Amino acid sequence: MSLLVVGSVAFDAVETPFGSREKMLGGSATHFSLSASFFTDVRVVGVVGEDFGGEEMRVFEERGINTDDLERVAGETFFWRGRYDFDLNTAHTLDTRLNVFADFRPKLSEVSQRSRMVFLGNIQPELQRGVRREVRGAELVALDTMNYWITSVPEQVEAAIREVDVVIINDAEARQLSKEPNLIKAARRILSWGPRALVIKRGEYGAAMFTDGAYFAIPAYPLESVFDPTGAGDTFAGGFMGYLASSGTVDEAAMRRAIIFGSVMASFNVEEFGTERVQRLTHREINERFSAFKRMTHFEEIPFERPAAAATEK
Amino acid sequence: MSLLVVGSVAFDAVETPFGSREKMLGGSATHFSLSASFFTDVRVVGVVGEDFGGEEMRVFEERGINTDDLERVAGETFFWRGRYDFDLNTAHTLDTRLNVFADFRPKLSEVSQRSRMVFLGNIQPELQRGVRREVRGAELVALDTMNYWITSVPEQVEAAIREVDVVIINDAEARQLSKEPNLIKAARRILSWGPRALVIKRGEYGAAMFTDGAYFAIPAYPLESVFDPTGAGDTFAGGFMGYLASSGTVDEAAMRRAIIFGSVMASFNVEEFGTERVQRLTHREINERFSAFKRMTHFEEIPFERPAAAATEK
Repeated sequence: MSLLVVGSVAFDAVETPFGSREKMLGGSATHFSLSASFFTDVRVVGVVGEDFGGEEMRVFEERGINTDDLERVAGETFFWRGRYDFDLNTAHTLDTRLNVFADFRPKLSEVSQRSRMVFLGNIQPELQRGVRREVRGAELVALDTMNYWITSVPEQVEAAIREVDVVIINDAEARQLSKEPNLIKAARRILSWGPRALVIKRGEYGAAMFTDGAYFAIPAYPLESVFDPTGAGDTFAGGFMGYLASSGTVDEAAMRRAIIFGSVMASFNVEEFGTERVQRLTHREINERFSAFKRMTHFEEIPFERPAAAATEK
Repeated sequence: MSLLVVGSVAFDAVETPFGSREKMLGGSATHFSLSASFFTDVRVVGVVGEDFGGEEMRVFEERGINTDDLERVAGETFFWRGRYDFDLNTAHTLDTRLNVFADFRPKLSEVSQRSRMVFLGNIQPELQRGVRREVRGAELVALDTMNYWITSVPEQVEAAIREVDVVIINDAEARQLSKEPNLIKAARRILSWGPRALVIKRGEYGAAMFTDGAYFAIPAYPLESVFDPTGAGDTFAGGFMGYLASSGTVDEAAMRRAIIFGSVMASFNVEEFGTERVQRLTHREINERFSAFKRMTHFEEIPFERPAAAATEK
């Protein structure tokens, strides 16, 4: 099933306690599409500047990602500089230059408009709604957002969520968005706006999914070396949506496996800087780590039978 | 299999955003033994003061817990007062009065010395070692500790860990103890001291277990109302050790189920204040929640098969 992503394509500069990179390929649409490309055909809608060269384009081409709707305009590509401390959970933004991304208006070709599955990366919610209206025939549309939009235009975020099938955000965003400190109540409120699933990204603690009447949760893959968490959330979303697009069904069982594949892809992403690790992944590595998830969460369901000697229950 | 616990028996005063209690039964040995009593016979080694009355003793009696080694001495029972904010993860201690617990020297009767399974609750590590030496024939000895001991007498904590089979602590304690920010490296170091298993309590994020060559992790049971997390860790340990004592085997599969039962018991504990919820639990409720854990973590292991159309891998 064809998969479309709308989001940022950027250059990132990142410092962590384990090293740094001055200029590397980044952005939500980049991480998403690279991850999803292991599962299905992907088209990217985004914008880059004149400094975006052949080397960067080749990263997309080598993964067979369609860039017909990746616009190239005068100016510089979106640039983000950030730092992570030993607690790699929090990104400290040092510099953000929107550059050509400031005036980004997604333009979907006719082929893109016919996409069956769509991921609305973290951009202005009104732009997300505009894209949503252009892909009327899509079977499944998912959305990411961030605290910046929830704080500044909460009603627009809610309006965008009302028009999609799946919301993929983190714990704090779900709480802020719903104004509910309890995650279950937060999920219930967000699902009441219409989506069929709320997927919660928890970083080093894994991921969870709320659907109507069901809850699914999974720990993260345990990693000895985490180098750079930049793009982990979009890489997760790419694995999730890419797997769903490839499987052709979007029932509860498929969505659960999609969460595992998303977690697998994110676990590789953080092992090295930027897109470095995902670029040279193999399907064998992906499936091996999927199996590891099964092993590390497996237990037998054997109810406790009260021994006769401990018959203290009334 | 007989199960022994050494730890505190206390009165707690607790404030949370959802209510408060001025004087309720608490302490590590209390929460542990109540939880374990649903699975096996338990004996408590501890000390209480003259203010510890018939009402409190009946809580133990009603669950069939043996209190022959629960010493009663002149003075007042250990008292703790704490507050939790909306983020229920952190207890803010407002007052600690050790009272009779200050001079606590565990005294094990001959029956207790013959216990097959032992839990050394969070007390001074040299006292834990003393008890460990008295139960030489035990098949499995587990230990809890806390940041206070890790900061003040780290070498004593390590010495105590070298003499036990299972360590049950939280993420932060494991990192502090091993001086390793990465949890996997932390686990490897702690296991290198001798224990066969390191169980990590993660509160609202669940629990994990490191054994030689295997990793197991489980999310927490999702709760809509958490009233009071006091005693959750000891209730977890009680379910874990109680189940292992009842099952008679302590292999990897049994320890995984024990982690689920521990998580089940802890999830009930936090639903109400102190011991209120666990006191009136039933085996049916325990088994129902065990099944819920299976449902909420289940996914089918189906490797991804690359569709012919997306043959971009080299």
